[in-house]
Amino acid sequence: MQRIALIGVGLIVGSLARALKASPEAENIHLCGYFRSSAAVAQALEIGITDSATTSLAEAVAGADVVILGVPVGAIGDLLQQLKPYLGAAVVISDVGSTKGSVVAAAEAVFGQLPPRFIPGHPIAGTEKSGMSAALPDLFQQRRVILTPNERSDRQAVGIIRHLWQLCGAEVVEMPVVRHDEVLAATSHLPHMLAYTLVDTLARLDEHDDIFRFAAGGFRDFTRIASSNPQMWHDICLNNRPALLKILQHFGHELARLAAAIEQGDGATLLRIFADAKMARDNYSANH
Amino acid sequence: MQRIALIGVGLIVGSLARALKASPEAENIHLCGYFRSSAAVAQALEIGITDSATTSLAEAVAGADVVILGVPVGAIGDLLQQLKPYLGAAVVISDVGSTKGSVVAAAEAVFGQLPPRFIPGHPIAGTEKSGMSAALPDLFQQRRVILTPNERSDRQAVGIIRHLWQLCGAEVVEMPVVRHDEVLAATSHLPHMLAYTLVDTLARLDEHDDIFRFAAGGFRDFTRIASSNPQMWHDICLNNRPALLKILQHFGHELARLAAAIEQGDGATLLRIFADAKMARDNYSANH
Repeated sequence: MQRIALIGVGLIVGSLARALKASPEAENIHLCGYFRSSAAVAQALEIGITDSATTSLAEAVAGADVVILGVPVGAIGDLLQQLKPYLGAAVVISDVGSTKGSVVAAAEAVFGQLPPRFIPGHPIAGTEKSGMSAALPDLFQQRRVILTPNERSDRQAVGIIRHLWQLCGAEVVEMPVVRHDEVLAATSHLPHMLAYTLVDTLARLDEHDDIFRFAAGGFRDFTRIASSNPQMWHDICLNNRPALLKILQHFGHELARLAAAIEQGDGATLLRIFADAKMARDNYSANH
Repeated sequence: MQRIALIGVGLIVGSLARALKASPEAENIHLCGYFRSSAAVAQALEIGITDSATTSLAEAVAGADVVILGVPVGAIGDLLQQLKPYLGAAVVISDVGSTKGSVVAAAEAVFGQLPPRFIPGHPIAGTEKSGMSAALPDLFQQRRVILTPNERSDRQAVGIIRHLWQLCGAEVVEMPVVRHDEVLAATSHLPHMLAYTLVDTLARLDEHDDIFRFAAGGFRDFTRIASSNPQMWHDICLNNRPALLKILQHFGHELARLAAAIEQGDGATLLRIFADAKMARDNYSANH
């Protein structure tokens, strides 16, 4: 029997729990959830998302083979500090945070270095919804999970985390921390910033009372991610600052170039940008 | 029998044709489509999107009660010049262009003023697909159509165009030309510019070979509109320059403000922007 402690059970770790319990190895896995309130414990047991549930960190990780950290990235440092006394040398740790440099830095601050059996992870999946009640057992099917072990990482620990995600139907990929943070800044964090800024800009225009009435389907799709959890994205922004600022600046330059082409009536540049983007997007669409 | 000439039958006017032919008044409406090539005429007749089809503008509008212009906004001026000799005084004209100031200007250039029976129109609907084969009979169901008549417009003509769109299930709204162009710049043109620029930026990053592999569902929704027709968006940009440049500049300021908050670690500002945007988006979602 493998005992897995889930510390913070929201959409992502809740979906991991659902997926593991729908996997062929479900019977050999005991999931113990840690929740901050007894109300959440009661809810978890009622909807059966974990096998056991507690408001005690010590109890949650006691005897655990694997500990998965599901708290927002901004809370990982404090959590590791609290967990430290209870973590045995053999326990394998991972997380699901959207930024990896900050998680490694938090672990280094608590342990002196990234523990060899702490394998940072990030499943590339999600919805704009939050909370354990939004968890889906198939959220990770055919999605990618990025692990960012380093050269001192315990390869057996990497294998254990890799196997858990594979049980959920995910494809596991390894890459360096810095590369992860750059790729995610471009493909996830930047689009969220654009969607949030667009909706906030429109909402604050004088005419906001009816401007949204005239938004069509494209707008609906484009801005869906602006319904994402504000606290989570606050944490992500503050924990991936260098990579996010770099890509925001890059995007700002490109948008200014587009605006200049519009101002100058430079149709050739507009057509090239739109055609190149369409080709890239159609190609992405064909492969996903 | 009402005879309606459809000049340029792509996604939008093709969907109008399908909707009218699915309406209770279908039997009293004859749709004549104008196409640039005999191949398109043959395709139109094969898929039955119009009752008759021709490559002759004169033939298309002969005896027409209503003429709907479905060409890209950049081509409206030339088209009106060509049509002018064939248009009787009683004919009602409308269009489906995404910009209205430029369409009015094109009509003024050809006729001296906007003809009282030319009622500019814009259905707020679409998909990222193009062409008559992508036409959908229910594309306008519960969607809004904006008409921009002026104080000299013939109210009977407004009523005729209004009725056609209502037959398609749309809600018809009137507003001034300038207001239309500002509202659409904000809710449609700006999001398309952001999606095109984002995909183009990512595609041109060095790592583009695999960067899209790590894009999640949010990215897919966010960038769907980057698959839209480049020529159409080229035309829209060049025909709604003042309003589009104004909102692009406004958005650029807001994005810079967000970047400054990230750089300064100003979590309170980030939380406020994200929470306000989420509230506006959730509210929009609940009403659409």
